[in-house]
Amino acid sequence: MVDIATRVYNHKWKIDPIVRSLIDTDFYKLLMCQSVFRNRPKTQVTFSLINRTDKVPLAKLIDEGELREQLDHIRSLSLSRGESTWLRGNTFYGKRQMFRPDFMEWFEKLRLPPYYLERRGDQYELTFEGDWPEVMLWEIPALAVLMELRSRAVLNDLGRFELKVLYARAMTRLWEKIERLRELSPLGIADFGTRRRHSFLWQDWCVQAMIEGLGPKFTGTSNCLIAKERDLEAIGTNAHELPMVYSALAETDAELAQSPYKVLEDWQEEHEGNLRIILPDTYGTKGFLENAPYWLAGWTGIRIDSGDPAAGAEVAIDWWKARGEDPTKKLVIFSDGLDVDKIVELHSQFAGRVKVSFGWGTLLTNDFRGLVPNDALAPFSLVCKAVSANGSPTVKLSDNPEKAMGPAAEIERYKRVFGVGEQKRIKVVV
Amino acid sequence: MVDIATRVYNHKWKIDPIVRSLIDTDFYKLLMCQSVFRNRPKTQVTFSLINRTDKVPLAKLIDEGELREQLDHIRSLSLSRGESTWLRGNTFYGKRQMFRPDFMEWFEKLRLPPYYLERRGDQYELTFEGDWPEVMLWEIPALAVLMELRSRAVLNDLGRFELKVLYARAMTRLWEKIERLRELSPLGIADFGTRRRHSFLWQDWCVQAMIEGLGPKFTGTSNCLIAKERDLEAIGTNAHELPMVYSALAETDAELAQSPYKVLEDWQEEHEGNLRIILPDTYGTKGFLENAPYWLAGWTGIRIDSGDPAAGAEVAIDWWKARGEDPTKKLVIFSDGLDVDKIVELHSQFAGRVKVSFGWGTLLTNDFRGLVPNDALAPFSLVCKAVSANGSPTVKLSDNPEKAMGPAAEIERYKRVFGVGEQKRIKVVV
Repeated sequence: MVDIATRVYNHKWKIDPIVRSLIDTDFYKLLMCQSVFRNRPKTQVTFSLINRTDKVPLAKLIDEGELREQLDHIRSLSLSRGESTWLRGNTFYGKRQMFRPDFMEWFEKLRLPPYYLERRGDQYELTFEGDWPEVMLWEIPALAVLMELRSRAVLNDLGRFELKVLYARAMTRLWEKIERLRELSPLGIADFGTRRRHSFLWQDWCVQAMIEGLGPKFTGTSNCLIAKERDLEAIGTNAHELPMVYSALAETDAELAQSPYKVLEDWQEEHEGNLRIILPDTYGTKGFLENAPYWLAGWTGIRIDSGDPAAGAEVAIDWWKARGEDPTKKLVIFSDGLDVDKIVELHSQFAGRVKVSFGWGTLLTNDFRGLVPNDALAPFSLVCKAVSANGSPTVKLSDNPEKAMGPAAEIERYKRVFGVGEQKRIKVVV
Repeated sequence: MVDIATRVYNHKWKIDPIVRSLIDTDFYKLLMCQSVFRNRPKTQVTFSLINRTDKVPLAKLIDEGELREQLDHIRSLSLSRGESTWLRGNTFYGKRQMFRPDFMEWFEKLRLPPYYLERRGDQYELTFEGDWPEVMLWEIPALAVLMELRSRAVLNDLGRFELKVLYARAMTRLWEKIERLRELSPLGIADFGTRRRHSFLWQDWCVQAMIEGLGPKFTGTSNCLIAKERDLEAIGTNAHELPMVYSALAETDAELAQSPYKVLEDWQEEHEGNLRIILPDTYGTKGFLENAPYWLAGWTGIRIDSGDPAAGAEVAIDWWKARGEDPTKKLVIFSDGLDVDKIVELHSQFAGRVKVSFGWGTLLTNDFRGLVPNDALAPFSLVCKAVSANGSPTVKLSDNPEKAMGPAAEIERYKRVFGVGEQKRIKVVV
C-alpha cells in the first residue's frame, strides 16, 4: 500500500538533497575541527576542490544550478538536537565527552560559510575561505555532492530495470569482496568511503552489508551520521590537513621542519590510545620518522596513506625496532587505494608482525567500474584541500610524487627542508 | 516513513499466501477448462503431483502443516469481480468473449475441490479427484505452492543481506540473458514459467524485466494474473492433458489411435488463428504427423515440447512441405527446457525458415543454480498430471522416454497403437 502522505511530502521537495546533516561527514574532520578550534581558531584558510581526473568533465555532466542548489542546501543545515546529543553523550574510542562543551556550543550554532563557484572549461572551481574551523567542514559534503551529482548525471539515462540490475551487479560485486574478506583472521576493517562515495544511500547499503557479512571484523565507519543511525563506532583520527596548514604558517625553515611534530604534540595533549595514530607521509615518511622526537615511537600506531604500502609498513616496523618498541603491539592502518586483492596481500604479509587494520574507501563505496557504457561511473580522484593558510600556500609531498600539491618552488623548498630524495611514482587510481 | 496500518495489517495474516488468486494460473488451463467444460464435463479424473527429482526431499524440507495451510488457502479463493470482468471483457488472441457466459457463470461460483495429502518417505503424495473441469485447475497452484515452499525452506537460513545479494545475483543473471536475447531479430518470446517459478514475486519481477529489456519482442506471459496486472497478452493454447484423458477414455485400440485427433477436432470447433497450435508429441511426433487428418496441416503452427527440438522442428517442416504448406508461414513454438544458449541456437537455425517463437519456462523464472550452498535452489522436475480418467490410467510417451508416464503394460500398448519405435533418451533437467 502506498503511503500517500509520504508521496505527497516527497513532491514538496524542490531538490533531493544529497547531504542532509552536518554530521554526514568523516569523524576525523570533527576531531581535527575541535583541535583547530582550540589551538588555531583564527587561522584564515582557503580550501579548494581539485579534480585530479581531467577526463571526467564535471562541468559538462553537472548543471551549475543543481550544484548551487545542493551547496545552498548544505548551508541551510545545522546540528539537530539528536545529533548534538549523540556527539555529547557518546563514547568514542572508549572515551566519554570526547567533544568538549565549548566546542559543542560553537558547533550547535554553526552554519557553513559561503562558497565560491565558477566554471572553468569543463571543470568547476569551487573554493571556500574563512576561519579554519568553519571552512574545513566543507571538505566532505562538497566532495559528496560532486560525486553524487556525477552519479545522478550518468544514471539519468537508465531505465528502471537497468537501474535495478546496475545496483544488483554492484551489490553482488561488493558481497563477493566481503566473502573474501571474511576468510581473513584476525581482521579489523572500517569504512573510510564517505568522500568518494557513489551516493549516500549506497554508502549506507555498503555499511549494512559489511555489518552482516563481517560481524565484529567490521570495526566501524568514518561517517558520523551512518555510525549514529546504525549504532556503529565512528572511526578516524587525523589527516594531512593539520601538518599542511601548520607548515604553511611556519615562518622559518627551522620552524617548518618542526611543524609536523608540533601537530602531533598538540594532538597528544588531547588524545590517547587508539587516537594516537601517526600519519607520517605528508612530507615523506622516511625523513619524518628518522627525525621524529623520541616520544612519538610510544604512539599506538601508524597510518600508511601513500606510496608502496608494504614498503611503508616495513619502514615503520624497522623504526619501531630501532627505537626499542615491539612492532607486534603496534597498529598499522592501511588506507590508500585499497581493494580486496591488496587487502588480502597486505594481511598475509603483516598479520602477526603488527596489528593490521584497514580503512577501506573508494573501492568499498564506489566500485561501479565497468558497469555502464564508457565506464562512466568509474571512481575518479576528486579532492578538497587546504591550499593556503594566512596567505601562504600549503604544500603536500606524500610518498608518491603523483600526489604532491603546491607551488613548484615551495615543493622544492619543502623537499629540501624535509630531506626528501628520489620518490617512486605510483599511478593514482582513486 | 513506515505505513503503520500496512504493517499491522500484515501482522494479521496467519500465513503469507503463495497463491492469492484463481487466475494465478496458466492461460491454457482456462482455455482447456472451457473446452472440457463444454465437451467432457462429467469425466472423473485423478491428478497427481509427481516429483521426478528424487534427490529433492520435499517432505523433509516442507512442513506438512504449512503445506496444508497453503492448500487450504487456495480452496478459500474464488474469482473476484475484477478478475471475472477481465476474463469476460478482454480480447485474447484478437478475439472478444473468448470465455463464454455459461463457462464464466460456472467459474465465478467455483471453489477448488478437496485435496488428498500424505507423506511417503521423503516425498508428499498429493492427489486431486473429481470432475475434470474442477480438478484440472489444481495443477498450477499446487505446483506453485510446492515450488515456493521449497524456496522458502532453503532461504529460511539466510541473513537479510545474503538474501539481498542472492536476488541481486539472480537479477543480474536474468538481465544478462535478456541482453543476449535482445540481439535476436525477429524474436517472439513469452513467459511460460508459472508452474516452476521460484516464487510469485520473482516471476512478476522476471516479467517486468522482460518488458523493459525486450520491448515488443516479449510477447506476453502464460500467467493470467500477471497478464492482467501488467497489461500484457495472456499466452497459451493447449497441453498434453487433453489427449491423455481423451485417450484413457478410448474403449478400443482403434478409438485410441484417433483420440489425439479428436482432441484437435474439438479444439478446431472453438478456436482459430494463433490458438490452432498442434502439440504433436504426446504419443510420438513422427507417427502423429504421418497419420494426421489432412485439415491439420492447415493449422497455424506447432509446439515442440520434448525430444531434440531442432529434430522436432525439421520433422514439422518436412511434414508441412509434404502436405503442400509453406513452412515460412507457420509458427514453431519451442517450449521444452529452454535457456538462452538453446534459444540463440534454435533461432539461428530456424529464423526465416519458419516463424520462430519461444515459451520460456523454468530457466526464466527459476534460475538460482549455483547461488546457494549445495545448489539447494536448483530447479527440479515437479509435475502435476492426470493419472486416470473414469478409472482408466492415462499414458504419456512424448519424444523422450525419460518423460514417459503410465503403467508399463499400457505404455507398451500405446507404443504399439501409435507405432512408436526406438526413442532417444534425453536427460530431463527441468
